[in-house]
Amino acid sequence: MKTNPGNFFEDFRLGQRIRHATPRTVTAGDGALYTALYGGRFAVQSSDAFAKAVGYPAAPVDDLLTFHVVFGKTVPDISLNAVANLGYAECRFLKPVYPGDTLSTVSEVIGLKENSNGKTGTVYVRSVGSNQRGEEVLSYVRWVMVRKRDEGAPAPQAHVPQLAKRVEPSGLGGACPAIDAAKWDDGLSGSPHRFGDYARGERIDHVDGMTVEEAEHQLATRLYQNTARVHFNQHSEAQGRFGRRLVYGGHVISLARALSFNGLANAFHIAAVNGGRHVAPLFAGGTVFAWSEILETADVPGRQDVGALRILTRATRDLPCTGFPVEDGAPDRPGVVLELDYWALMVR
Amino acid sequence: MKTNPGNFFEDFRLGQRIRHATPRTVTAGDGALYTALYGGRFAVQSSDAFAKAVGYPAAPVDDLLTFHVVFGKTVPDISLNAVANLGYAECRFLKPVYPGDTLSTVSEVIGLKENSNGKTGTVYVRSVGSNQRGEEVLSYVRWVMVRKRDEGAPAPQAHVPQLAKRVEPSGLGGACPAIDAAKWDDGLSGSPHRFGDYARGERIDHVDGMTVEEAEHQLATRLYQNTARVHFNQHSEAQGRFGRRLVYGGHVISLARALSFNGLANAFHIAAVNGGRHVAPLFAGGTVFAWSEILETADVPGRQDVGALRILTRATRDLPCTGFPVEDGAPDRPGVVLELDYWALMVR
Amino acid sequence: MKTNPGNFFEDFRLGQRIRHATPRTVTAGDGALYTALYGGRFAVQSSDAFAKAVGYPAAPVDDLLTFHVVFGKTVPDISLNAVANLGYAECRFLKPVYPGDTLSTVSEVIGLKENSNGKTGTVYVRSVGSNQRGEEVLSYVRWVMVRKRDEGAPAPQAHVPQLAKRVEPSGLGGACPAIDAAKWDDGLSGSPHRFGDYARGERIDHVDGMTVEEAEHQLATRLYQNTARVHFNQHSEAQGRFGRRLVYGGHVISLARALSFNGLANAFHIAAVNGGRHVAPLFAGGTVFAWSEILETADVPGRQDVGALRILTRATRDLPCTGFPVEDGAPDRPGVVLELDYWALMVR
Repeated sequence: MKTNPGNFFEDFRLGQRIRHATPRTVTAGDGALYTALYGGRFAVQSSDAFAKAVGYPAAPVDDLLTFHVVFGKTVPDISLNAVANLGYAECRFLKPVYPGDTLSTVSEVIGLKENSNGKTGTVYVRSVGSNQRGEEVLSYVRWVMVRKRDEGAPAPQAHVPQLAKRVEPSGLGGACPAIDAAKWDDGLSGSPHRFGDYARGERIDHVDGMTVEEAEHQLATRLYQNTARVHFNQHSEAQGRFGRRLVYGGHVISLARALSFNGLANAFHIAAVNGGRHVAPLFAGGTVFAWSEILETADVPGRQDVGALRILTRATRDLPCTGFPVEDGAPDRPGVVLELDYWALMVR
Repeated sequence: MKTNPGNFFEDFRLGQRIRHATPRTVTAGDGALYTALYGGRFAVQSSDAFAKAVGYPAAPVDDLLTFHVVFGKTVPDISLNAVANLGYAECRFLKPVYPGDTLSTVSEVIGLKENSNGKTGTVYVRSVGSNQRGEEVLSYVRWVMVRKRDEGAPAPQAHVPQLAKRVEPSGLGGACPAIDAAKWDDGLSGSPHRFGDYARGERIDHVDGMTVEEAEHQLATRLYQNTARVHFNQHSEAQGRFGRRLVYGGHVISLARALSFNGLANAFHIAAVNGGRHVAPLFAGGTVFAWSEILETADVPGRQDVGALRILTRATRDLPCTGFPVEDGAPDRPGVVLELDYWALMVR
Repeated sequence: MKTNPGNFFEDFRLGQRIRHATPRTVTAGDGALYTALYGGRFAVQSSDAFAKAVGYPAAPVDDLLTFHVVFGKTVPDISLNAVANLGYAECRFLKPVYPGDTLSTVSEVIGLKENSNGKTGTVYVRSVGSNQRGEEVLSYVRWVMVRKRDEGAPAPQAHVPQLAKRVEPSGLGGACPAIDAAKWDDGLSGSPHRFGDYARGERIDHVDGMTVEEAEHQLATRLYQNTARVHFNQHSEAQGRFGRRLVYGGHVISLARALSFNGLANAFHIAAVNGGRHVAPLFAGGTVFAWSEILETADVPGRQDVGALRILTRATRDLPCTGFPVEDGAPDRPGVVLELDYWALMVR
């Protein structure tokens, strides 16, 4: 058979290394579409002039655009037969990506555990995105629940990897050049609040809401060459679990990040994602809101220019975040759809 | 508070100067999206080869894309608490913008007048967009009705600026290099009609209509980093004045300009906007038509290559322009949504 | 009249040459939008690094993007008053197109035949797209049924051109540089199946389906500066034949091609289109599926690096292609919407 049926649970082997198609050159065109899809306003990614003034050679590609492109490549091999995307961990941005760079992805199977029902199992992979010079730009672990092709296939020896609860602050600076904080123009960046102005426990309602249209999430997900069927095919999804197309979870992450500018304007770089959960599905027509809590503030070893904020951002659907809502376990009502625990760098 | 509540009427001071976030590098990606959103066919903006042949170093960015990017930056500071966008005047394009240029905006408060109800007031600002070399590329005045935070706040001394009814022809050439009219290829530009073929009083129905989708105007408005809430948030707008999201007025201007190619193909450059009014709201699902009247033809002092047409373009919703409709004061029926009085340069 | 009424059947003359507006510089922005619209994953067009490794100077523009841009220019002159787009033939890609190239189109009328009803006639044109150096990049014939303005206008001498049933294999290599097959990385390209693995008569279900939204096909068609009214104007189409906007047929071609990656990943270049028919209309909300049959396999004279597959791709609406459906003549039911007979080059 020449078409790709995707891998089933019993097709994965511990230690297996999978090189993914298709390499992708990221361009200024992708950057423009990314802005049109989410409306991001972080100055470093928006302006070559601003980026150069503070120490970048040019405006880098948005960190999450890099994530989505690297992630998209893994879908045909890892999650085409997935039932659920269970989580992320140890996600680190290692080098900045600039327009013109070509990204490709390799994954390694680092854990396998069949479920007791014998129909599915959890696959853990570490995926690494590299540029055209072979330099690693992004590394992350995700785990997904994947169907078995044949329920009679023997279960592999269970192996669940030990994953860090959080990325250590020493691992946060790789994708950020030295920033000249004196050249950082708060008027242009949109906020006078720098690293020292944020404290552990602080909560920020990002105020604004953004309604998602079918055309928007489809454009986004195709831009990332993510082929998961649930996002595009109303004909089949009409018969499916939800009766409709499901918005790519990464689309929600990008919306929440763009909304977070209102309150975190100087948190210019996502350095790492400690963990993430898509708590409930999002569908077109839903309006996404977000709020953030500062979990931790940390020095980055060896860096005087920037500090790190560990931020827990929750995105909701059809629920403004004035009251800082948390998950309440009601999947069919307005409520939390995303919890994202990440490290952002902020200028001092 | 770290989030931006926007300025209220009593926050503005006459002579106040506001530097706006976020600087924005305009790229070929923005140009492609602009074409996809409106379908513009003016040869100078569409083709590097055409632009170079007639005297530009490369195809410039569409004038209205420049306008929208410069305008978008002002929204978080000027009009987040606006009730209505009342008008524009003295809008001049001063330098061409090319892909790779970075735009930023500074505004000055040039007028203030509290309304007699004590709840709102009109704020007049002159906004200037500049490129990465600090050269001014665009200057315009707009006035908006803004809510007061505290109705008890004292009214400022009323000051209403004197604004020109029209930009003088001597001020029109700044963003247009010398055009080699002999190299202007009417076959490629789409029309044999040049400056001398248009006369005062002439009316042109632009024939075609364009239906607007929610995803389209949202993509456009985010591309311009315009954060006005009424365009994006169905959850809150469902409870609002119209029960639905409002299309950014600039989206209508760009649609009308693109439609005007059919009849004004050689009017390659918007040199100035004398005035503009959003007569009625537009919503997704509406179909935009447009017609134009030539108000004036003028020489541009010192220029033999181009002449200036002063054009009044009216855009309508759900109303073809065969009968050259004008405003009739019925906001809930098909009818005029935009009146735009502008100067275009046309090759002689 | 300064607006373009389009040409009617009696306006065309055998041998007439029509230079079309508007020249168009194709950029990386167009490439990004093309990816967002269709989700293509062919490695040569997606990655500069991959393209350079195998022998291109850079990633070329997608062949069908070139087609749509060249085609779009012909609409205002050829098919504005068309009743139906009847067919394509002798379509050859002659030179690769790269971001930065400017495309323009010239057509020649090569056939005319009035219909017996005296109200319409068939116009045959050969359209040639060229780049900024005057090099031909694409040539194709299409024929359309066009209305007469005046039913009393005399019928021209009927002339129906002889058109090749298929492009000869000797004419297929022009837009493809020498490919270094040893550098072709099957892991990155997405499939181990090369030219020798495909056989005449083989049928491939491309599995996936893609639902089309109004905003998507409107964005696409405007990107190509295609001005056909049926695609954009719900106000007039509500009164028309279908009661709704019609999706540009080329949008369906691009969707089918993108879907065909799943089974034809190494068919990296469309070298020619032998024929194409839009069997039934597509509307927003429809889900497109596709399947392909290998009609022929051929050597390309003088080329050891690549072979040619003649492929018949059928696209359907709301009908998965597991059963390899063919046209059954039921226009209002799920079924075939497109038959496209084309030559693709595949690495050996």
